Amino acid sequence: MTAITGPRSAHDGRRTAVSRPRVGHIDFLNCLPLFWGLARTGSLLDLDLCRDTPERLSDALVSGELDIGPISVMEYLRHADDLVVLPDIAVGADGPVMSCLLVSKVPLAELDGVPLACTTTSRTSVRLAELLLTDEIGVRPQYFTCPPDLPTMLADAPAAVVIGDAALRASLLEADTLGFEVYDLAEMWRKWTGLPFVFAVFAARRTFLAEHADLVREVHSAFLASRELFLDEIDEVCHKAARWAEFDAATLKRYYLSALDFSLGERQLAGLREFARRVGGVDAGFPPDVRIRLLDTEQAG
Amino acid sequence: MTAITGPRSAHDGRRTAVSRPRVGHIDFLNCLPLFWGLARTGSLLDLDLCRDTPERLSDALVSGELDIGPISVMEYLRHADDLVVLPDIAVGADGPVMSCLLVSKVPLAELDGVPLACTTTSRTSVRLAELLLTDEIGVRPQYFTCPPDLPTMLADAPAAVVIGDAALRASLLEADTLGFEVYDLAEMWRKWTGLPFVFAVFAARRTFLAEHADLVREVHSAFLASRELFLDEIDEVCHKAARWAEFDAATLKRYYLSALDFSLGERQLAGLREFARRVGGVDAGFPPDVRIRLLDTEQAG
Repeated sequence: MTAITGPRSAHDGRRTAVSRPRVGHIDFLNCLPLFWGLARTGSLLDLDLCRDTPERLSDALVSGELDIGPISVMEYLRHADDLVVLPDIAVGADGPVMSCLLVSKVPLAELDGVPLACTTTSRTSVRLAELLLTDEIGVRPQYFTCPPDLPTMLADAPAAVVIGDAALRASLLEADTLGFEVYDLAEMWRKWTGLPFVFAVFAARRTFLAEHADLVREVHSAFLASRELFLDEIDEVCHKAARWAEFDAATLKRYYLSALDFSLGERQLAGLREFARRVGGVDAGFPPDVRIRLLDTEQAG
Repeated sequence: MTAITGPRSAHDGRRTAVSRPRVGHIDFLNCLPLFWGLARTGSLLDLDLCRDTPERLSDALVSGELDIGPISVMEYLRHADDLVVLPDIAVGADGPVMSCLLVSKVPLAELDGVPLACTTTSRTSVRLAELLLTDEIGVRPQYFTCPPDLPTMLADAPAAVVIGDAALRASLLEADTLGFEVYDLAEMWRKWTGLPFVFAVFAARRTFLAEHADLVREVHSAFLASRELFLDEIDEVCHKAARWAEFDAATLKRYYLSALDFSLGERQLAGLREFARRVGGVDAGFPPDVRIRLLDTEQAG
């Protein structure tokens, strides 16, 4: 037997290992565009991708277990001092979003004082629903949280807030059989304020940015390139995704192109600031004029 | 506000959701070829990929938490009745493997009765080391398991078995400074038996195969296509992987092309059967002539 010597003198293959940025990934249809592009470009190799639920990823980013990732807007606003937002990319809607819904068996004006079931899986959507019901409709239901199973939720309450794939299912598949009306929270917000609504941003920890600014910019660029590749290949990806989804390729394409808004420009930022202004305060855990820091994509180092 | 109606009549987007096959993935350099190809081809979308350690993935496949995945050969042989092996792909070596090592501060003949540290992370490699030391070298060390940190292991014992990236590090980077000889277990096996050694196979649960034969064949085809794409793009992937590894691109390429053997043909199967013949018995948990079932890739359904 022979001891392996390896190429050990001049070119000895010796290196200092660098840790890949720890990046969160949500296995929801709304995060598929990013994942598709990261995979297809090979950028996945540059990330230590952690798949988990939105809440756990938000918590992990706040606690420092992740370096970069999606974070729901309420959680982001509460921890805005520790985070920097990646510009030009987010998960939002500039009109109906299809996957963030208030469903109700009675007219909304009749929800005062009655129980309203909220999925435990979205603090931002629940706060948006509460804001709209209180300030626009003028009712104050009794909110309670429960697992995201719509038939169970509606057995215990006349109305519910649901998000994500469960909401898509509710709006497209279940409304007829379960006998409720579907109210799109992003559409309500848009009609009320004239602005897009941002549900989640992608953020990096400021401590990570301070030490790895180039890496953060690189991940940001990979995110943008991934979204572009996704759009280029949207028919293929919808065809492939439809195989495993409850929705056909045409529905998925409509969801990606017409409902979701993956941008974060001036109008989206205005929507984000308007939401902070309306819900901010001591109870929310951030001031109405909370400072939103954007990654400077121009400056080097 | 408007209730979303969606396209609900003739083409209503309604579908029965199908579960994607749950497939294991190891974040070791030796599984990178598969991951790279699955990502680049977009096949990742067709898998519910679970990243974990080799032991936990082996256990998950045996317990039915996974449908398809890599499994160490010792675990596979113990549960061969419940599993079917995917042909033409495996993780093995037909000569030095660089990443499955016995390291020793004394000549192997002096290891009789002395402590030998084994990483907890590889049952197959430990059994192979024990087989070679007992039957070829004629010594019986006192095996004990410990975490895979080589300096700690060698502080408590004159010799150790290490695998994976830690072994690559040991053979390429640490042998000089820590003062030990490196013995390549796959090379020892090859010289002893004239056969390749197979460390892990990819297997599907027979119960899953019974219900989803087409899916298993499809995943198998995706694995083979991924390996091909990896080989086509090996310079790019080694260049990218080297950024995050302790090894440079040339070393990685040597590891992938010269050390690892990703095939599972007649010679590799003969090596697998020979290993089962030599270690099988009541203690091992499988008979020496254990039946190895291969996925029939020709037959439909």
